[in-house]
Amino acid sequence: MKTLKIASIPGDGVGREIMPEAIRVLEKVADVHGGLKFDFEEFPYSCDYYLKHGAMMPEDGMDRLSQFDSVFLGAVGDASKVPDHISLWGLLLKIRQEFQQEINIRPAKLLQGINSKLANPQDFDIVVVRENSEGEYSSIGGRIFHDDNEIAIQNNVFSKRATKQAMNIAFDLASKRKGLVTSATKSNGIFHAMPFWDEIFEEISAKHPNIKSESKHIDALAAYFITHPHELDVVVGSNLFGDILSDVGAAIMGSIGVAPSANLNLNGKYPSMFEPVHGSAPDIVGKGIANPIGQIWTAKMLLEFNGEANIAEHLLKVIEEVTADGYQTADLGGKYKMTEVTDEIIKRLGK
Amino acid sequence: MKTLKIASIPGDGVGREIMPEAIRVLEKVADVHGGLKFDFEEFPYSCDYYLKHGAMMPEDGMDRLSQFDSVFLGAVGDASKVPDHISLWGLLLKIRQEFQQEINIRPAKLLQGINSKLANPQDFDIVVVRENSEGEYSSIGGRIFHDDNEIAIQNNVFSKRATKQAMNIAFDLASKRKGLVTSATKSNGIFHAMPFWDEIFEEISAKHPNIKSESKHIDALAAYFITHPHELDVVVGSNLFGDILSDVGAAIMGSIGVAPSANLNLNGKYPSMFEPVHGSAPDIVGKGIANPIGQIWTAKMLLEFNGEANIAEHLLKVIEEVTADGYQTADLGGKYKMTEVTDEIIKRLGK
Ligand SMILES: CC(C)[C@H](C(=O)O)[C@@H](O)C(=O)O
Ligand SMILES: CC(C)[C@H](C(=O)O)[C@@H](O)C(=O)O
Repeated sequence: MKTLKIASIPGDGVGREIMPEAIRVLEKVADVHGGLKFDFEEFPYSCDYYLKHGAMMPEDGMDRLSQFDSVFLGAVGDASKVPDHISLWGLLLKIRQEFQQEINIRPAKLLQGINSKLANPQDFDIVVVRENSEGEYSSIGGRIFHDDNEIAIQNNVFSKRATKQAMNIAFDLASKRKGLVTSATKSNGIFHAMPFWDEIFEEISAKHPNIKSESKHIDALAAYFITHPHELDVVVGSNLFGDILSDVGAAIMGSIGVAPSANLNLNGKYPSMFEPVHGSAPDIVGKGIANPIGQIWTAKMLLEFNGEANIAEHLLKVIEEVTADGYQTADLGGKYKMTEVTDEIIKRLGK
Repeated sequence: MKTLKIASIPGDGVGREIMPEAIRVLEKVADVHGGLKFDFEEFPYSCDYYLKHGAMMPEDGMDRLSQFDSVFLGAVGDASKVPDHISLWGLLLKIRQEFQQEINIRPAKLLQGINSKLANPQDFDIVVVRENSEGEYSSIGGRIFHDDNEIAIQNNVFSKRATKQAMNIAFDLASKRKGLVTSATKSNGIFHAMPFWDEIFEEISAKHPNIKSESKHIDALAAYFITHPHELDVVVGSNLFGDILSDVGAAIMGSIGVAPSANLNLNGKYPSMFEPVHGSAPDIVGKGIANPIGQIWTAKMLLEFNGEANIAEHLLKVIEEVTADGYQTADLGGKYKMTEVTDEIIKRLGK
């Protein structure tokens, strides 16, 4: 019997509602397939935790999380309680950076039967490979001068090492898919970082003559997700651009409530972390209408990257069947509650 | 007779094709209304100019342009000839920054009869107010180290002065519209610049108790343009965020070929500049299928900000009638050529 030790962090808002749903699904799918067991431990790290303890996690928080195979996260942040830059840099971004989860994988594909927000979308199937450790998400910078003369400076830091790594992973992925890598750039406006990004992209492209490659500026590319999503395959972007494009990808699927993501540690030193793309959505808390698909599809990625590709595929197939048959929450125009969607998935997982 | 002296810069690619179309329209509309005359002078500044002269414009280029009431620009950039950061910082961004065009206004509204890329869009009418002079578009930064250790640092610079100015303009505009300002932030990820941005937004919001205000993170906001565009009114964003959102706004209208923009100089020292949102689209050059609406709608903004609001409104009405009657180019799914769309607009302008 293989046991996966999972640290679950429900976090804030709807994170706390959807986490139990995804755990129900994981327990069930393990049960159905046999040979796999989950050992979950829940950590209350969140904005409420901050209000009580003055920190998003205790001193030994990272140590404790490092003992697990993976971290499974709901959603973090509630600006009505704690400023976002405090809550995120104290938890989500801290884990991504300290656990060296340098790659974030975010698929966006047309799910059968889901009402995409696009008019007549052709079948699209995109994976966004996001550099996850540096770039625009840096804590270097500060402020100077007073009153109306005040300025803030923010330093973006791009390393060749991490940039190459993200691009190599994108080309690797594309070689197993449709064979196209699109780079999100903005070298026409962002003077130093993006020409650097483009040079590295050209270098890596040249090493993969069998994979087609192209560069698009982030503004045009975000528009292209809306006008021509079926023309894309693998998209590689910086930390910020990957963030934006994956939300746009989620929206064209129909709702940011459905999109999953995997924060991958590649050097084996620390756990990877799995979390849906959406936020904590404080406005819909307590209504039972949160879409559980994002967290459940994220559970599928947790299985996949823990060596359980078959079980993962089975789960995705069931998710698609259930959505295709109309079991959808209000954000997708459906009439079902969060738990009803989950129940249907669990029912169809079999046994 | 009022004469407007306009410096036209067709630029690259389709810029050269659509510029004559928009000029035909401006001549006609002035003729129909009487009392207004245009004095156009064309400047060949472009990537081809660079290949011949080693610069995007001559030494005295800015001086010459400064003699005009407005600059009317087509599209700049063709990476197959000149790297984008060279061509744009040598022309478009140079003009925006040196002529202190600190505000960029970019409307996105559902045009009657245009096939939006969204499924059943509710009527939306958004104006993006973009800070146009600083932020992520800074030439400060550089590189260090060699080979795989190389890093690039890009400094983003946000001043309270320019940030306040953009926000004040957004609140002003909202007071004449639906009364809502949405701020594009990313204070959960961008540690210094965006909390600074948020603080200023709160300060300006507090001074406008009659205008509703809200903040959304750029990733969620880009998605919101797709899922809930009708809920938005005025959106204020940094240089980069305004850039991205205005392209997304163009895409939800149906095509980036339709969207206009105005780069406004507010201190009266230099001309303002008017340019469509789309790029030079080298791939469709010579086919006669470029969408002239972006440039013609931009001509409408040139009229508006040169004190000709009535003529501007007339032109917009005709644009909407013509698109509503199906005169549309291929990017919108239509069968008409660029010149046919323009001809129809000119015909309907009357006389
Ligand atoms: C060409 C480029 C530098 C420019 C920008 O980023 O501002 C363009 O995308 C725009 O929107 O006007
Ligand atoms: C919450 C926030 C810091 C985070 C990010 O920007 O990475 C989120 O938007 C995401 O996409 O995971």
